Amino acid sequence: MEALLHQSKAMCPFLKKTSPGTLRSLSTATHHSPGGGTITNLQFIARRCPVMNKALAVQSARMRTSNYTSAAPSIGVVKSMRAKKLHTSAEKKANVDTRIYRKGDDVLPGRVESAFAKSKDAPKPGPKPSAPTALKFDYEGFYNEELDKKHKDKSYRYFNNINRLAQEFPRAHMSAKDERVTVWCSNDYLGMGRNPEVLKTMHHTLDMYGAGAGGTRNISGHNQHAVALEKTIADLHGKDGALVFSSCYVANDATLATLGSKLPDCVILSDSMNHASMIQGIRHSGAKKMVFKHNDLVDLEAKLASLPPAIPKVIAFESVYSMCGSVAPIEEICDLADRYGAITFLDEVHAVGMYGPHGAGVAEHLDYDLYASAGPGASASTTKKGTVMDRIDIITGTLGKAWGCVGGYIAASASLVDTIRSLAPGFIFTTSLPPATMAGARTAIEYQARYQGDRRLQQLHTRAVKQDLAERDIPVIPNPSHIVPILVGDAEVAKKASDMLLSDYGIYVQAINYPTVPRGEERLRITPTPGHTKEFRDELVQALEGVWQRLKIKRTSDWRAQGGFVGVGVEGKEMQVEPLWTDEQLGLRQGVDGEVLQEALEHENSPEMPAVVAKAAAAA
Amino acid sequence: MEALLHQSKAMCPFLKKTSPGTLRSLSTATHHSPGGGTITNLQFIARRCPVMNKALAVQSARMRTSNYTSAAPSIGVVKSMRAKKLHTSAEKKANVDTRIYRKGDDVLPGRVESAFAKSKDAPKPGPKPSAPTALKFDYEGFYNEELDKKHKDKSYRYFNNINRLAQEFPRAHMSAKDERVTVWCSNDYLGMGRNPEVLKTMHHTLDMYGAGAGGTRNISGHNQHAVALEKTIADLHGKDGALVFSSCYVANDATLATLGSKLPDCVILSDSMNHASMIQGIRHSGAKKMVFKHNDLVDLEAKLASLPPAIPKVIAFESVYSMCGSVAPIEEICDLADRYGAITFLDEVHAVGMYGPHGAGVAEHLDYDLYASAGPGASASTTKKGTVMDRIDIITGTLGKAWGCVGGYIAASASLVDTIRSLAPGFIFTTSLPPATMAGARTAIEYQARYQGDRRLQQLHTRAVKQDLAERDIPVIPNPSHIVPILVGDAEVAKKASDMLLSDYGIYVQAINYPTVPRGEERLRITPTPGHTKEFRDELVQALEGVWQRLKIKRTSDWRAQGGFVGVGVEGKEMQVEPLWTDEQLGLRQGVDGEVLQEALEHENSPEMPAVVAKAAAAA
Repeated sequence: MEALLHQSKAMCPFLKKTSPGTLRSLSTATHHSPGGGTITNLQFIARRCPVMNKALAVQSARMRTSNYTSAAPSIGVVKSMRAKKLHTSAEKKANVDTRIYRKGDDVLPGRVESAFAKSKDAPKPGPKPSAPTALKFDYEGFYNEELDKKHKDKSYRYFNNINRLAQEFPRAHMSAKDERVTVWCSNDYLGMGRNPEVLKTMHHTLDMYGAGAGGTRNISGHNQHAVALEKTIADLHGKDGALVFSSCYVANDATLATLGSKLPDCVILSDSMNHASMIQGIRHSGAKKMVFKHNDLVDLEAKLASLPPAIPKVIAFESVYSMCGSVAPIEEICDLADRYGAITFLDEVHAVGMYGPHGAGVAEHLDYDLYASAGPGASASTTKKGTVMDRIDIITGTLGKAWGCVGGYIAASASLVDTIRSLAPGFIFTTSLPPATMAGARTAIEYQARYQGDRRLQQLHTRAVKQDLAERDIPVIPNPSHIVPILVGDAEVAKKASDMLLSDYGIYVQAINYPTVPRGEERLRITPTPGHTKEFRDELVQALEGVWQRLKIKRTSDWRAQGGFVGVGVEGKEMQVEPLWTDEQLGLRQGVDGEVLQEALEHENSPEMPAVVAKAAAAA
Repeated sequence: MEALLHQSKAMCPFLKKTSPGTLRSLSTATHHSPGGGTITNLQFIARRCPVMNKALAVQSARMRTSNYTSAAPSIGVVKSMRAKKLHTSAEKKANVDTRIYRKGDDVLPGRVESAFAKSKDAPKPGPKPSAPTALKFDYEGFYNEELDKKHKDKSYRYFNNINRLAQEFPRAHMSAKDERVTVWCSNDYLGMGRNPEVLKTMHHTLDMYGAGAGGTRNISGHNQHAVALEKTIADLHGKDGALVFSSCYVANDATLATLGSKLPDCVILSDSMNHASMIQGIRHSGAKKMVFKHNDLVDLEAKLASLPPAIPKVIAFESVYSMCGSVAPIEEICDLADRYGAITFLDEVHAVGMYGPHGAGVAEHLDYDLYASAGPGASASTTKKGTVMDRIDIITGTLGKAWGCVGGYIAASASLVDTIRSLAPGFIFTTSLPPATMAGARTAIEYQARYQGDRRLQQLHTRAVKQDLAERDIPVIPNPSHIVPILVGDAEVAKKASDMLLSDYGIYVQAINYPTVPRGEERLRITPTPGHTKEFRDELVQALEGVWQRLKIKRTSDWRAQGGFVGVGVEGKEMQVEPLWTDEQLGLRQGVDGEVLQEALEHENSPEMPAVVAKAAAAA
């Protein structure tokens, strides 16, 4: 033994360096072995040694084989246990979900095999030991069962490979590069994703500052791009601060989760049609949640009134609801918030860039004339007091839709922003957006803050599409915004319609199914852009007409005959939903049927289109 | 009345279009008014009318003034209520947190003022009505209190404005463009953020496909870049599937939350030093959580053994722990998972790109020779069975650190990936990463899969820094990875040291304080890169020496005299942590003190450095 130790010491760099005292303590202290027995810390370290590892593996394989063959029940036993629902035979009392099991076939590929696999000259592996535990949850079986459910209820999602071409907006190619389609459902509402100013900024920033931020905001990922972007956002919304996140999903989730968990006894009042990100944020907060009926002030007030006055309350809602295009009564909700001591959390994700004279969203749009004359939020700081946008406590938005990039944000008071910055794990512990993304998004915001043409044209195209579809009795869910939701009312038919549009007409409109909309309200959601000129619109309407005929999908008149559904075919509904963008704001002196719209739309293919819109606006 | 209606009908487009029947129903149905009374739906719609809105506002202001002055208590009353903790006077029973109140000073800027503000020619507002409710939670006060706490315990974070320069890596400029610093704490470990191939791909993709994806993966945001990136990731890790998220924070959060909430009776076993994203994911899942001691197999096994065999269990852990550089016993954890019927969830965020012959992470590195000879994960699919990487069920990684971009992912079986894809809100309801980001990340992965030079050089620099600091008795927390955590042990001193390095030495190393590390374990976390050549390293070590002297920060010997702390000055600790990258793998024939390392490091400034490393590797 002495000689062996001496020899080992001479050969082994580990033993050479280690004092006898340390060796002794290492061989005394014990680890529980994965095999069930006890091993010393020395044995544990020895596994890292190329020499000892093999020896240990062989030894361990021998030990295991003898252990497991005697201890573990055979497959036959497992089967009979399974039949008996196995509550009796298990050693430990099992709180077992009996739905899914499988045999322990993969239970022991473990260390034995892989230790051999690693060394080229390893001896042949011995006989495979049998399973140590009789039963194991069947994970793969469970996943497949979950997926089967999705297939069965037709909510399984098939992604379409859509490559939007910057130079051919709103066209894209499919997986084959020469297979072109027209995209009619992108949230790049204004085509800013291919805006030359945005791309120029991004190219420059990429070359100068590289591809990624390289760290979290706290650790080397904070930079001038983040500072400038957050300043631009705060100014746009007339707030003292802003904070940028990976996405607005994260912004909503992190902010609501943090507020709801930190504010003592907080109650969050949430519109019933709020986006998943808010629902998750509220759930994650652990705060009490009260869901009020969609856009229903009476229900909201009743719920607010039921709460003690002094506890903190957050009213969480959206300006434009993405899947139906409805718009919240923002000002009235502010009134309720004031009256009941709540703060307001407004998601403007589908509205930023699209509404207001500077694209700050619906809240800005509600004071259109004031902001149009006074400039964006912050520069009008002396006059903005009391406007709807000013009264909202927290505005959240995305950089990934009308502004064409990616990322999300909140804008609010400096202290709220600093609190979220300091406390929200979803902000703290994640890599910053790339410099080029932040710089590009800022360029997009500033571009849209000084140029109205894109969003006006988008609105004109929206009106034209809605009008054309109305004339054809194709059921658009009425709403005052830029969204054109076409009711289908069946998951399978909606998917068929979408597939048919793509394959037979070269038009891409994704079917919107559960859980994005409730079952039975499946729809095609169409989003016109400034690029969807008359030829594209005519193609779309004809294609929809063809699909509606071939699949015998219900028309508006069919829904009306049934008493109407989600606003379609409901008496007086269309009348109540005057567009947010008025004729005057769009530069139209007359209604949607008027000559100016026709003139504008006729000129839209020409380079002077923005000038036409501007002229019309000036004339109004 | 008849005449008035007739006149209105002639002038008002709304009345002109609306049938008497509709008007009747609108004026019968009622809304609860924010002012407390009841208004008709007709009044509600009238608020949108530029004419009626003003008239209503004036009327409403009159009504409110009279209502509130009579109903609401005066400020004096509020104060006395506050002194009495106000449980008696409130109309409704209050579940009141009495910590923070403020007077209802902002309670009614409401509709009255803003309605006036909106119209230029509005009449002068009347007297401001007093507060309707006596008390309101003081939100701003609460935020400031939370921030004060952070200031007091020195965990308040000050962001440094660091603009990493692609052409001068690892240099950056501060907010002033001519103020240069050397970045020593970025997670762009390999400098891939400025890699010419990556940038070229991104430029091309930007021009071709634009700035943003324009939608969620399901709605127009799925494209060839996503398909190719996920294929590359799956192949790299030898898995059947992969799924890309906004970040690995989101990947971890969404995946664990989904698994834990869907798997029946699931228990998640979580290493005590797991990243915040996993902690949040587990919390959000609602599943039972068991925290095992950091890297402690005995504790993990005891917890596994305490659970019924057949219930689903997820062991969630990391390969390289970012803040201390420790490395998990991955293979042994796989053994335990097999034995107890658990699945493994391994976060390789700080390891991908850095370990393994193709940069697939520590799991690949543990079978270095096999993968080095057989190619990346999937191409070796016939030989990979039973390797450590193969045995891991779910690998998560980031595109934002060693690969230099942004985003995160999971790689796993096809059915698991499809399940998360189908069920996780954090994946479903968010905009895809931009095409250029996905294309750039893929280029980075492929580059690092075929080129070993960057990560080898990074390891050589890490060894050199650790060795230099050891010689100066500056306390590095011992670990086998590329992280160089220098123990300070005090939040205020750590921040001072970081500030001093920046201002006096032009070196940026962020102080790492609570909650990123436990209180009392504050540190400077240094991350060498291939760009940190000898001059930079010498500067760093001299600067640290200066700061350690000036701030009288404890040395390794001081910690040793106290019995050691977090591995620093602990007898035998350094010996146990042999680097993951062996001398052989680094192409060094001798130990770290040997001639080859010296030779390699002397050549590192020359273009032939990669060749030197390759030559040394071949000679080994």
